[in-house]
Amino acid sequence: MPVYDAPIRDMQFLLHDVLKLQNFSNLEGFADASPDVIDAFLEEAGRWHRDVIAPLNRTGDMEGCKRAEDGSVTTPKGFKEAYKQFCENGFISIAMDPDYGGQGLPLVLAYAINEMTSSANQAFGMYPGLSSGAYHAIHQNASDEQKQKYLPKMVTGKWSGTMNLTEPQCGTDLGLIRTKAVPQGDGSYKISGQKIWISAGEHDMADNIIHLVLARIEGAPEGIKGISLFIVPKFMVEEDGSLGERNGVSCGGLEEKMGIHGNATCVMNYDEATGFLVGEEHKGMRAMFVMMNEARLGVGLQGMAQAEVAMQNAAAFARDRLQSRSVTGAKAPDLPADPIIVHPDVRRMLMDTRAFVEGARALTYWTALQADLLHKGEDEKTRQKAGDYMALLTPVIKAYQTHKGYQGTNDAMQVFGGSGYVEEWGMSQFVRDCRIAMIYEGTNGIQALDLVGRKLMAEGGRYWQTFFAELDEWCADNKGVSEELDGHIEKLLEAKGELLEATQWLGMNAMANFDHAGAASHDYLHLFGLVALAYMWALMAKEAEDRKGEDDPFYKNKLVTARYFFERVLPETSAHLAKVKTGSDAMMALPAEAF
Amino acid sequence: MPVYDAPIRDMQFLLHDVLKLQNFSNLEGFADASPDVIDAFLEEAGRWHRDVIAPLNRTGDMEGCKRAEDGSVTTPKGFKEAYKQFCENGFISIAMDPDYGGQGLPLVLAYAINEMTSSANQAFGMYPGLSSGAYHAIHQNASDEQKQKYLPKMVTGKWSGTMNLTEPQCGTDLGLIRTKAVPQGDGSYKISGQKIWISAGEHDMADNIIHLVLARIEGAPEGIKGISLFIVPKFMVEEDGSLGERNGVSCGGLEEKMGIHGNATCVMNYDEATGFLVGEEHKGMRAMFVMMNEARLGVGLQGMAQAEVAMQNAAAFARDRLQSRSVTGAKAPDLPADPIIVHPDVRRMLMDTRAFVEGARALTYWTALQADLLHKGEDEKTRQKAGDYMALLTPVIKAYQTHKGYQGTNDAMQVFGGSGYVEEWGMSQFVRDCRIAMIYEGTNGIQALDLVGRKLMAEGGRYWQTFFAELDEWCADNKGVSEELDGHIEKLLEAKGELLEATQWLGMNAMANFDHAGAASHDYLHLFGLVALAYMWALMAKEAEDRKGEDDPFYKNKLVTARYFFERVLPETSAHLAKVKTGSDAMMALPAEAF
Repeated sequence: MPVYDAPIRDMQFLLHDVLKLQNFSNLEGFADASPDVIDAFLEEAGRWHRDVIAPLNRTGDMEGCKRAEDGSVTTPKGFKEAYKQFCENGFISIAMDPDYGGQGLPLVLAYAINEMTSSANQAFGMYPGLSSGAYHAIHQNASDEQKQKYLPKMVTGKWSGTMNLTEPQCGTDLGLIRTKAVPQGDGSYKISGQKIWISAGEHDMADNIIHLVLARIEGAPEGIKGISLFIVPKFMVEEDGSLGERNGVSCGGLEEKMGIHGNATCVMNYDEATGFLVGEEHKGMRAMFVMMNEARLGVGLQGMAQAEVAMQNAAAFARDRLQSRSVTGAKAPDLPADPIIVHPDVRRMLMDTRAFVEGARALTYWTALQADLLHKGEDEKTRQKAGDYMALLTPVIKAYQTHKGYQGTNDAMQVFGGSGYVEEWGMSQFVRDCRIAMIYEGTNGIQALDLVGRKLMAEGGRYWQTFFAELDEWCADNKGVSEELDGHIEKLLEAKGELLEATQWLGMNAMANFDHAGAASHDYLHLFGLVALAYMWALMAKEAEDRKGEDDPFYKNKLVTARYFFERVLPETSAHLAKVKTGSDAMMALPAEAF
Repeated sequence: MPVYDAPIRDMQFLLHDVLKLQNFSNLEGFADASPDVIDAFLEEAGRWHRDVIAPLNRTGDMEGCKRAEDGSVTTPKGFKEAYKQFCENGFISIAMDPDYGGQGLPLVLAYAINEMTSSANQAFGMYPGLSSGAYHAIHQNASDEQKQKYLPKMVTGKWSGTMNLTEPQCGTDLGLIRTKAVPQGDGSYKISGQKIWISAGEHDMADNIIHLVLARIEGAPEGIKGISLFIVPKFMVEEDGSLGERNGVSCGGLEEKMGIHGNATCVMNYDEATGFLVGEEHKGMRAMFVMMNEARLGVGLQGMAQAEVAMQNAAAFARDRLQSRSVTGAKAPDLPADPIIVHPDVRRMLMDTRAFVEGARALTYWTALQADLLHKGEDEKTRQKAGDYMALLTPVIKAYQTHKGYQGTNDAMQVFGGSGYVEEWGMSQFVRDCRIAMIYEGTNGIQALDLVGRKLMAEGGRYWQTFFAELDEWCADNKGVSEELDGHIEKLLEAKGELLEATQWLGMNAMANFDHAGAASHDYLHLFGLVALAYMWALMAKEAEDRKGEDDPFYKNKLVTARYFFERVLPETSAHLAKVKTGSDAMMALPAEAF
């Protein structure tokens, strides 16, 4: 059975050495997160994830969720007890608002814990993950009264939350939503309709489930401008906070999926359920986007986290499995064959994944720190820049990291050879679970369109211009540290030059034919992802360079992986640029019926 | 539920227009395969695969195979009856030797039918697929008496066959095989040991199963030089051809796999089973390689075939599913949204897969024709060249096409969005089934090593030199046909130049450090795959160019896809070349314990 050990050393390197959280003690809650506190928290969380929740991953996959006739849903054995511990350990409330019982610690620390959960048991992690999204949507959009009513119980995890967007006729295109809301005159609405693919829609781990539901108020304008957001609790909440009667919402069925079997993916039927408007009428999409953006970063994290755990197991297998001799001569002459980690092509897969995972971890944490700065930054300029970066990088992180993370789980499976394909070894589950991350919270194609169609153009190009300028400045500031770092900087600037060229090509061609932007979007996003990771690898190499003289081999190893990234991964930029500049002509030329 | 319609038009184009089978009527059996005969056969086979075996794909996945206490195995409902029809229709014996009841038709035609089976139901197709491999191994290596005894029943499909190589301690490294063979003095051997992952090892579709088993004769030399090949029938075969008593071989268990659930993947226990030596003592590996080479081409075909069927279903979904408006203005203004095939990024996935599938089909058929020429060519020079091409391209086809085919099934799933992840829609099965093709018959890493370590160096580089020279000659001969074809030829020659550069880099560097060859192997193979597909696209574009004036839009569409390939797929060569030339230093630098 696969195991998981949280990469605490790497997390510490990022939080302390690269992001230098200790320098941000001016931000609310950061002073409480001293290096010692962080280290202790990571250690404790690492142990819990290794010992408690990772062992439930494979059993959860095999057992899945069960729906009874009455619509109630049972999660796999052990999930309920683990969830209780998860909440008691404070893993859910790390960065939540102290006004409602949260710990108010940096979001970036919450992301590190989130990574552990996503590695150890993605299906389990989705329950608190969805709650967190719902918490944020309520926290940012609901009335004080609503916040007082729902948030304290969500912060403790006693109540969980969901996002209800998709309907059979609409996923990406939420303007087509049909679920209707009829005002009752008392401030409440009756919600009726069917939602599908609702993760954690019904389960046995929390006392109540707070559904956030997109619906159309009778007489609302057509399209997305007529969509409103509602709170629909599974059990009505009385004035004193106690639970009242069951609301008219129920699970009509569970989807049979390729993976994440431990998570209940529900058809949710709303049958004149009582709902409460969040924010303004017809402004539901905006409120939901807050939730989706947090969720998208979390999904990008999942892609990386699944590749991490798959790689850990592949590396252990590669050290253990004896098969054939090294082509450069026996490395374990006393054994019947060498461990397969001596074979370059096995290394290639491990190093590809390692270079991706460590770069993606840096990018995710770096961006999570921007989220902290966006919420807690002391001046408008800091907050604006942080917001720009968040907006720009969220689609990149979501799509690039889930794409490459899936590749990482597949490479890890490949290291296992035939054993990888046999369910018993658990590698198939990483592939099957990870696959959803490329789809949910907006398919990767939608992320790419969001990047080229919205984020590049926003504020006259300010987002990307700020990011490129910061990158240039860092490169200028760090030249001359070492020959090796200079080489990396040169490659980074070259790749950034290609990204700039692609950006300018879009600027010149997309307006003439919007299809050029769509045709370029996937490759543009991947080019962006490579440059963003290269920037992270430069940041990490700089810190490692400064400390490579220390006894700890961590820094020397980091420099090896940095070199691998610049030599072996970054050259992919040129093909993406070539594809971007090809335009949409051949892509769109065939009539639909020719396919 | 997914459907399958054999791409008969494309198959005809390849067989008649591109490969021009009618020009090979000098080869044995080719005169019987006139264009009319081929067309009728393809039509009939297409109908059967669409109506009979494709509908059993999803049910077979859900039901799987069942093993009873006594070790007997039941295949999914409908498989047994379908197999009977499959044999009666002559699909199994197309290219088999008329001396044993085969039809003696071109192998390339058998590949076309094999493609249909691999698309319609990969798990089902493996039963006759393994039989075919066993047939070839016996046909080429066994004594006349053995051939007379086993082949006629295998040709009709009444008996099936298997390949027994893998043991728990060895997959890739067959030198570690422990299964032992003890001579009985009467020409027979007692075989004892355990084999794992034996596809079609036990089932209820044939009267007898002829196992081909690698084992070590007592006292044999260590390593692969001490491995012999044995026939071990499930039921002993009497002198008169009737079935005798049950042999000491049985299925000890079925593997629970990620996919191909309809195929029985067996643990096979040999308990003093009676076996008969095939060919010479200790020369089993060579005999088995014959079987593996045929099988590897078949696996490469599977990768393409699964991408084909997945793409067919994705295209149908994309024409049907309404979601969002085209960015260039509504294309179906009367509907609530446009069909998603109007969105460039959906097209990108369909076109990527189409360009791969059509190119890979051409490459597979082209190479299958080489197999025909190898066996039936009239002069030594023809046979040698065909053998060179087969040897060179087999690892490329196996690894490149399964890698890209898997990507194709994943892209097809992605077109479905959330529905792709739900088992009910069937797209998950294509991904899960296709995944094994990258692993079995030698992992893709082993193929890459076979290419750079064996095939490039064989006969002083004759294989690749012949291939490159043919490509150059074709380009020289076909310049000036049209501006568009000239553009393609230029890109093809450029890519071939990069491949040559990579080949020369290997020649100069691999001898100094063999790890450089291993480190380069994956990217070298992919670079080779791209060039081989580009050559096929040039061949196809030439034929389409000649006939683009005809009413049939097929030729114009072919030219669009050719253009897409050269513009959008081929640019990937440069990144592969850059990676090849990086060498193995960073890849191998980390100590094993650092992972």
